[in-house]
Amino acid sequence: MIACYAAVAHGAGKPMVIEKIQVAPPGSTEVRLKIVHTSLCRTDITLWKNGNIFPRIFGHEAAGIVESIGKDVKGVQPGDHALTLFTGECKECDYCKSGKTNVCQKYGIDPERGVMVSDGKSRFLTEDGKTIYHFLGTSTFSQYTVVDQACICVVNKDAPLEKICLLSCGVTTGVGAATKAAKVEKGSTVAIFGLGTIGFAAAQGAKIAGASRIIGIDINPSKLEEGKAKFGLTDAINPKDHDKPVQEVIREMTNGGADYTIECVGNVNLIRDAVESAHEGWGVTVAAGLDESTKVLTVSPKNFLFGRWLTGTWFGGYKGRSELNQLVEKYMNKELNLDDFITHKLPLAKVNDAVTLMEEGKCLRCVLDANAV
Amino acid sequence: MIACYAAVAHGAGKPMVIEKIQVAPPGSTEVRLKIVHTSLCRTDITLWKNGNIFPRIFGHEAAGIVESIGKDVKGVQPGDHALTLFTGECKECDYCKSGKTNVCQKYGIDPERGVMVSDGKSRFLTEDGKTIYHFLGTSTFSQYTVVDQACICVVNKDAPLEKICLLSCGVTTGVGAATKAAKVEKGSTVAIFGLGTIGFAAAQGAKIAGASRIIGIDINPSKLEEGKAKFGLTDAINPKDHDKPVQEVIREMTNGGADYTIECVGNVNLIRDAVESAHEGWGVTVAAGLDESTKVLTVSPKNFLFGRWLTGTWFGGYKGRSELNQLVEKYMNKELNLDDFITHKLPLAKVNDAVTLMEEGKCLRCVLDANAV
Ligand SMILES: [Zn+2]
Ligand SMILES: [Zn+2]
Repeated sequence: MIACYAAVAHGAGKPMVIEKIQVAPPGSTEVRLKIVHTSLCRTDITLWKNGNIFPRIFGHEAAGIVESIGKDVKGVQPGDHALTLFTGECKECDYCKSGKTNVCQKYGIDPERGVMVSDGKSRFLTEDGKTIYHFLGTSTFSQYTVVDQACICVVNKDAPLEKICLLSCGVTTGVGAATKAAKVEKGSTVAIFGLGTIGFAAAQGAKIAGASRIIGIDINPSKLEEGKAKFGLTDAINPKDHDKPVQEVIREMTNGGADYTIECVGNVNLIRDAVESAHEGWGVTVAAGLDESTKVLTVSPKNFLFGRWLTGTWFGGYKGRSELNQLVEKYMNKELNLDDFITHKLPLAKVNDAVTLMEEGKCLRCVLDANAV
Repeated sequence: MIACYAAVAHGAGKPMVIEKIQVAPPGSTEVRLKIVHTSLCRTDITLWKNGNIFPRIFGHEAAGIVESIGKDVKGVQPGDHALTLFTGECKECDYCKSGKTNVCQKYGIDPERGVMVSDGKSRFLTEDGKTIYHFLGTSTFSQYTVVDQACICVVNKDAPLEKICLLSCGVTTGVGAATKAAKVEKGSTVAIFGLGTIGFAAAQGAKIAGASRIIGIDINPSKLEEGKAKFGLTDAINPKDHDKPVQEVIREMTNGGADYTIECVGNVNLIRDAVESAHEGWGVTVAAGLDESTKVLTVSPKNFLFGRWLTGTWFGGYKGRSELNQLVEKYMNKELNLDDFITHKLPLAKVNDAVTLMEEGKCLRCVLDANAV
C-alpha cells in the first residue's frame, strides 16, 4: 500500500476534502500511476453534483508516471510517462477489433462503476480502512491511482506532463470531433456551437484538417474574440446580435449551411440548431458535448430525409492506447495549441477553487499540481 | 395542345375524376411524355389528402414514351422510353455538381410547387380553359404530361414499362436506402422497419449488397411471411409477439444491434426505435419513409454520443438521370425483383380503387394502365 493525499468527495456537490488515503498495489493487468498533473473537466463537476456513489475520487484528465505494474501488464514499464484514459481500449473485444469505433466493450465510459473491472473491488481506502470508490476507471484527483492497462497511454518522455494532461479528455474530444468523427475535409466550412475547451479544440481540429471557414457560435463575446485570436476561428456569431435564428444566419453565411457542425455543450436545443445549420444533402453534425444527458433531442425528421447526418463521439473517436500519441506529436510539432487552453494553475489542494472558476466561466482548463496538497 | 384524359383531383381527399384535359407543348427545356404505366405511391395519397393546391393531377411514379421535346432539350428524342423523376437532376447546380447528394437545388422535391420551374406556369388546362396544377414536377395520372428534361431518365427500350415504372419512386427509394445511403457492407446485419414497398425494396438492396442477415419488422404477420418468401428477409420480428421493446429483441439477436437499420414508414417513433436498434459505435440508421412529416423525432442524444449515425434519403440517394439505369439493368439481369411488388393492375380510370386497396393494406404496388380510361 502507498499512503498519499487525494481530494475525496463525500457527497453530491459537497466540497472535496484533501485526505490521506491508502492506494493498494495494482492487480495483475493494472498499473499504479503517480499523478503529476491533472486538470478539471466539466464532466467531473456534473457527475460529482449528480452522483450517488460516495466517498469517491473524481478526476479523469491527467498525466503521470508509472510507479508499478501487475504481472500481466504488457508494453508498460515503471518510470513510463502516461496519460489516463476514461474510455479505455482493451484491444481484444469485438468493438476494439472492429476498426469502426473507439468504444470499448470492456472499458467503455461508465459513470456508475466505482470499482475496478478486473475484480469488482476498489484500490482506495480511507486512513481508517473504509472503501473509497473509483471514477471513470481513472480517479486522478489523487497523488497515486490504479488504472487498468487498457486505461493508460504511454507517451513520449519529452512531452511536458503539465501540458499534455489536457489530451486526456477535453482537447482530444474536440479535435477528434472535427478530424475523426466529422472527418472535416480541406476547404470545407465548419460551424462550432459552444466555445469552451471542446469547442476551441474542435476549431483546432478543423484548422488541422484544412477547413477554409471555421465559424464559432457563443453568447459570450469574449469567447468569440478568444477563439479568433488563439484557436483558429475565422468567423464568430453571437446569437444575441441577430433577430433571426442562428441556423438562418449560418445558412446565409455559408450558401445553404455548413459542411460540418459540431455541438460542444451537450445541450439538446443546440444539437437541433446544429443539425439545422448543416448543409442539406451532405452536412454532418457531430454531438461532442455531454451535459443534459437525460434530456431528449427533438428534431424534424425532414432534416435527415434531405440528406443531413447526425452522429456523436466520446473522446473524439480516438482509440486511447493506439492513437492518442498522434496528438502528443502534433503538440510537440506545434501543430496543436495546448498552451492557450491552460488559463489557470492551482495546487490539487485548491480543487474546489478550480470548480468555482469553471462554474463562473472564467476558466478553460485549470491544471492541478498533484504534488501540492 | 394535346387533348387526352387524366385523373383530376378537385379537393383534398375528394375522389379523383377522369376528365378530358388539354396538355400544352413542352417549353424549351421540357419534354411532353405519353404516360404508358403509372403506379400509385403512398405519397400521392398523403399529399392529395393534406394538400391545398387544386385542381391538380397527382402521380409521380411512371414510365412513358417521349412525344415531343423543347428546342433546348439534350439527350432525349421523341420515341425514347423514359421514367419520370419527382426529384430531378439538373446536372448544373452546386448540389448536382457536388457529387455528395442526389438533392437538386433547382428540381428538388417540392409538394408546394404546382407549376413548371421554367416559367412558373402550368401546362394543363381543363376543357373549359381553367388551370390544373402539377404535382412533384411529374403529374403522371394523365395520358400525357409535361416534365422538365431534368425530371426524366431515358431507359433501355427493351425494359418493360409496366414493370420498370416502379423504379420511378418506391422501389428505388428502398434499394438505395440500403445500398447508397446506408452503404450496407457484405456480411453485415440489416434491420428494416415497416414492410411495404420501400421496406421490401430495402431488403432487396441489402441482399444485393451482400448482407448476411436481413431482419424485417412489421406488426402484420403476412408481410413478414411475404418478405421471407419473396424479398430476401432472413429473419422476421413481429413486435406484438414480444413482451420487451423491439430494440431489445434486435440487440439480443444481433450481438448488440444491427449494423444498419432502415425506417421505411416515416413514423417518428419507428425512427427512434431504429436508432436504438443500431449497434453502438458504428450502427447507421437511414430514415427512408415519409408520412408524419410534421411530427418531430424525439431521441436521446446518448445514442449518438455512443457513435450511432442517423441520416435519411429521398429516392434512395439515386441521381435520377445519371444513375437510375443501374437499377433498370439490375432488373433486366434478374438481380432485382420488381415483379413481386406488383400486386394489382388496374386501368387509370380506377385510380380511386387503387387508393382504397393501398389504404386497406392489400397492395404493394397497383400499376395503372394509362390507356384504359
Ligand atoms: Zn475493447
Ligand atoms: Zn441540380
